[in-house]
Amino acid sequence: MIWQNKLTKLLGIHYPIVQAPMLGVTSPEMVAAISNSGGLGSLPVGGLPPEKTRELIQKIKVLTKKPFAVNLFVNTQDNVNLDEVSAMQDFLDKIGEKHNLKFDRKSPESFTFHSYKDQISILIEENIPVVSFTFGWLDTDSVKQLKANGIILIGTATSVKEAKILEDTGIDAITAQGIEAGGHRGTFINDEPLPQVGLMSLLPQIVDSVSIPVLAAGAINDGKTIKTAFELGASAVQIGTAFIASNESTAIPSYKKRLLISQDTDTKLTRAFSGRWARGIKNTLMDEIENSGLTIPEYTVQNSITGSIRAAAIQQDNNELTNMWSGQSAPKIKLESCNAIFMELIKQSENLK
Amino acid sequence: MIWQNKLTKLLGIHYPIVQAPMLGVTSPEMVAAISNSGGLGSLPVGGLPPEKTRELIQKIKVLTKKPFAVNLFVNTQDNVNLDEVSAMQDFLDKIGEKHNLKFDRKSPESFTFHSYKDQISILIEENIPVVSFTFGWLDTDSVKQLKANGIILIGTATSVKEAKILEDTGIDAITAQGIEAGGHRGTFINDEPLPQVGLMSLLPQIVDSVSIPVLAAGAINDGKTIKTAFELGASAVQIGTAFIASNESTAIPSYKKRLLISQDTDTKLTRAFSGRWARGIKNTLMDEIENSGLTIPEYTVQNSITGSIRAAAIQQDNNELTNMWSGQSAPKIKLESCNAIFMELIKQSENLK
Repeated sequence: MIWQNKLTKLLGIHYPIVQAPMLGVTSPEMVAAISNSGGLGSLPVGGLPPEKTRELIQKIKVLTKKPFAVNLFVNTQDNVNLDEVSAMQDFLDKIGEKHNLKFDRKSPESFTFHSYKDQISILIEENIPVVSFTFGWLDTDSVKQLKANGIILIGTATSVKEAKILEDTGIDAITAQGIEAGGHRGTFINDEPLPQVGLMSLLPQIVDSVSIPVLAAGAINDGKTIKTAFELGASAVQIGTAFIASNESTAIPSYKKRLLISQDTDTKLTRAFSGRWARGIKNTLMDEIENSGLTIPEYTVQNSITGSIRAAAIQQDNNELTNMWSGQSAPKIKLESCNAIFMELIKQSENLK
Repeated sequence: MIWQNKLTKLLGIHYPIVQAPMLGVTSPEMVAAISNSGGLGSLPVGGLPPEKTRELIQKIKVLTKKPFAVNLFVNTQDNVNLDEVSAMQDFLDKIGEKHNLKFDRKSPESFTFHSYKDQISILIEENIPVVSFTFGWLDTDSVKQLKANGIILIGTATSVKEAKILEDTGIDAITAQGIEAGGHRGTFINDEPLPQVGLMSLLPQIVDSVSIPVLAAGAINDGKTIKTAFELGASAVQIGTAFIASNESTAIPSYKKRLLISQDTDTKLTRAFSGRWARGIKNTLMDEIENSGLTIPEYTVQNSITGSIRAAAIQQDNNELTNMWSGQSAPKIKLESCNAIFMELIKQSENLK
């Protein structure tokens, strides 16, 4: 394997392996471990208050001197329909009662929204070398500011059309997110139906359509799939699910255990948890919300609504009543530390002819 | 590239490239051209009367002495709900009027169903070396008869669970059909939702789960994707869409033209044309039926219902009112003959390091 390429030089990393920004399970320790291993750790800060963003960045800086990325959600705020919210909250209250899970319902006024625009100055002040983003494109001013400070920008595309739009904004690289990927779809063009392109089809088509480097996301969990992505034209791979069961992940124990026995068809795309399409392992809360017949409010409203029951479930290590994001390819390497998993991925790749 | 392996020996072919059985566009000339090129042509006979099956086989035998496969649909007959049928027929009559397309509505009594069981003896009499099948598993008696005559059997799986069921029936190989593939999904377990696993995720998981050879289907349209499939553990690749625009294909000219400019998100899964989930390029008839609000009868009933309008559209080279099956990866090699396309695929694969 030849690990170095134009993109690794741009990112200042040794191995073209990026840890996927996974809000909810990524810790500063995970980000630092991946960067210290020679890859690029990614801190997801989508929707976090600016002060929290700074706090997490500073924690990582204590743990590594290597480059890492910060990942933004570039969506805008949605309208709150109070009737829909209260219907969904009534329903979740009943689910809580049924499953003996106690939590306090929050008033819609407390549903906070923090725009990525309020995080830009912090990223610049903290000298973040790489900023990745999803759910859309960065506004022109933000691109200008970030680029003026030498920051490398990576967008997320789920179709050729999205990749071309992103390239036109003047960013440095694009992550092609195959349908296999876990967590939220980065989709931002409201095409019907949702783009659901497999990585083997999406990746070469995006590579052929843009002239900036492309990262491959989805289905990558061992040396063979890493090698495959490079042969299809990727300049780096982004790996998420394979790190969720690691020590550094903040996923609850029952989620980690479930993930390790997951198979191809155990996940599905759902809007149940957050209001945005995301891939997770099928469980009780997903089924209940989908079968409720209720209108699921848009992201970020539904995300705020389900926050209470999910937090309570996490407290009790109950993996049936919170989201278990996962790709279609479960972790194959069942080692404990992020560094051990990372180095095993490298070893497997290098052992292939 | 090392082309020979256990499966090529079993199949008696030089290159581990199988032409996908594509009912509606596959001609005896296409099957023979692929087999004469050193691959395995496949004649689809799903739902055809036994005498037609024999006639097509005999035509191919005039054109090639090489092995080819015959592909069966192993589904059973569905009940006809006369109210649903007449509502759908009324609707299609209106679509015909709207678009100035004349066709005769058929009485539901004329909807024929031919079981694959009536084709088995012909396959044996005609000394067919390879029988592939989709939509389920072959009954025990048919497996016994076919195996007793030395016929190699290949089933189709869209999930690990299906692959294991197929392996347990004692067949010789399994085609892993990724979500990228065009045409009908081979799915036969009624899991909800329909398995939609990307090939990069599905293929290695099926390879790890069964001990018989696995063929890869979906997204394969050039040397890179062929090589990738082998690295992920495939023993052969099955290629469909790349051959639809060839001279030997019976696809109408407007379908061939449309296919060559198709992009990643131009296709979707639909039940509109046949009652079974299948991937095709979005067009007017697909939209009209999906937006009609009508219940779409199950396969094969819906397939019979839409047969009249589709036949009329084909007569007029109208690609908006018939199905245009296609995978998510359009043909990349725009050559005219199946042999030229096939040899270009070989050349591209061999030119890769």
